[in-house]
Amino acid sequence: MRGRMNDVASYIEPFKVNEPLSGGIVGRVVESKSPKFTPGDYVLGNLNWADYSVASDQELRKLDPNSGSISLALGTLGMPGMTAYFGLLEIGKPKAGETVVVSGAAGAVGTLVGQIAKIKGCRVVGIVGSDDKAAYITGELGFDAAINYKQADFREQLKKACPQGVDVYFDNVGGDITDAVLQLINHHARIVLCGQISMYNLDKPDIGPRNWWLLLVKSATLQGFIVSEYAERFPEGIREMAQWIKEGKVKFHETIARGLGSAPKAFIGLFKGENIGKQLVHVADESLSSL
Amino acid sequence: MRGRMNDVASYIEPFKVNEPLSGGIVGRVVESKSPKFTPGDYVLGNLNWADYSVASDQELRKLDPNSGSISLALGTLGMPGMTAYFGLLEIGKPKAGETVVVSGAAGAVGTLVGQIAKIKGCRVVGIVGSDDKAAYITGELGFDAAINYKQADFREQLKKACPQGVDVYFDNVGGDITDAVLQLINHHARIVLCGQISMYNLDKPDIGPRNWWLLLVKSATLQGFIVSEYAERFPEGIREMAQWIKEGKVKFHETIARGLGSAPKAFIGLFKGENIGKQLVHVADESLSSL
Repeated sequence: MRGRMNDVASYIEPFKVNEPLSGGIVGRVVESKSPKFTPGDYVLGNLNWADYSVASDQELRKLDPNSGSISLALGTLGMPGMTAYFGLLEIGKPKAGETVVVSGAAGAVGTLVGQIAKIKGCRVVGIVGSDDKAAYITGELGFDAAINYKQADFREQLKKACPQGVDVYFDNVGGDITDAVLQLINHHARIVLCGQISMYNLDKPDIGPRNWWLLLVKSATLQGFIVSEYAERFPEGIREMAQWIKEGKVKFHETIARGLGSAPKAFIGLFKGENIGKQLVHVADESLSSL
Repeated sequence: MRGRMNDVASYIEPFKVNEPLSGGIVGRVVESKSPKFTPGDYVLGNLNWADYSVASDQELRKLDPNSGSISLALGTLGMPGMTAYFGLLEIGKPKAGETVVVSGAAGAVGTLVGQIAKIKGCRVVGIVGSDDKAAYITGELGFDAAINYKQADFREQLKKACPQGVDVYFDNVGGDITDAVLQLINHHARIVLCGQISMYNLDKPDIGPRNWWLLLVKSATLQGFIVSEYAERFPEGIREMAQWIKEGKVKFHETIARGLGSAPKAFIGLFKGENIGKQLVHVADESLSSL
């Protein structure tokens, strides 16, 4: 969504001024002219930020409320979950015993990347922006180590946390954090380029050391990816992720803002690191009567 | 060789002060205690910069003087040739109709990358440092366009030369040149990270715009590689390259310095862009009597 607020060509159209923002929304059908949906159905779609929306049945996917919390369709069993799942497994290709580092480790994607890497038998180091987040990912999620990049000796801490170097780096952040990780990569390291959130709000291109030489001498691979490219395989990813949740191998956390009016503040909070796990905005209660 | 002059860990050991430099050498056997070689044999090895060397038979590969110029074992049919061949075909994966850009396009590797890409049916744009080199790669080697990066409107010229964007970028140079190419990459672009010669002689890390965002939004892949990783497949690469030479599809150029004493100057000249094609140092005549 942040990328769409810049007036530049990207993999998805920019937002238009004076038109509503849109994003991933879970809602409930109030009225339907399609045989595919009846009032009361839970649906997922890319819809406007609004109390009510009109959508064609092509744009909506029906959700099964018995399969767990419907909000998971926006997080662990939705776009962020599939981003973690396919990004880590298809591009990062972690092998048991390897060291996986993830930046933005307490976010919707990062929390899942680390837990999946643990399932695959890796040493997992998360980079976060607060000690609370560090405690959460090690204490609750089982990361082997967490580094708060705001601490002055961040680079030394990171080096100590990765005594065998770094085999997979799942990058959500970019900038100085990424520079530090690159110093530690091993031969044939894989870098999953998922986000560069440190740069989204900058007016000018960020300036930093040109570090491709590090990628060269280590025969490293860096791959940018957009999760929608794996859309056909989402059912497979959702199935396995749901199984891991059921088995208690993957935990999730949602940071929930209340009311549509809180959406802008919640959105801006993402860039200040205010959320843990998936940031949601609760627009209305689930019951039809309250709509 | 330049990398080995820095006292840092890399994929090959640094040179030691007060010991000879070593590199790829073609020579002729003067005396042999191995049944594998007899005086007069042409051999290839990684040997000291010297008039005479002692080597074990494990270190040497016999060359067939009837297979063409023996110096090709140091260029088109040797390390630079295999770098171009495997780097472009295995990492760049060019498809007919795509646009391939190569930096350092008039060098030992770049000249071959462009010609192989033409064989594969691509539009080929070379980036060079002089108008003479530009004329050579378009006039002699069949590149579709050549851009002299020293011209002020280099970026505009590059954009015009790539009206369909860039699908494969074979990077020998890095720095500003690479920044300019990245602005033009297409969805699913492949970047072959072969060299970063613009940086080898810098005292401090080069500083520039952090441009990973461009790789992300284009779902691009960047891969560093060291040609020795393909060593087992060199016979296959040499066979096909020799065939292309025979058919006139691949031409080569050698810049030859005369005498061992000219080696340091010739080496330094590489970083000033003084060579076209492979830089060789002719140490002695081929005939045994003259040794």
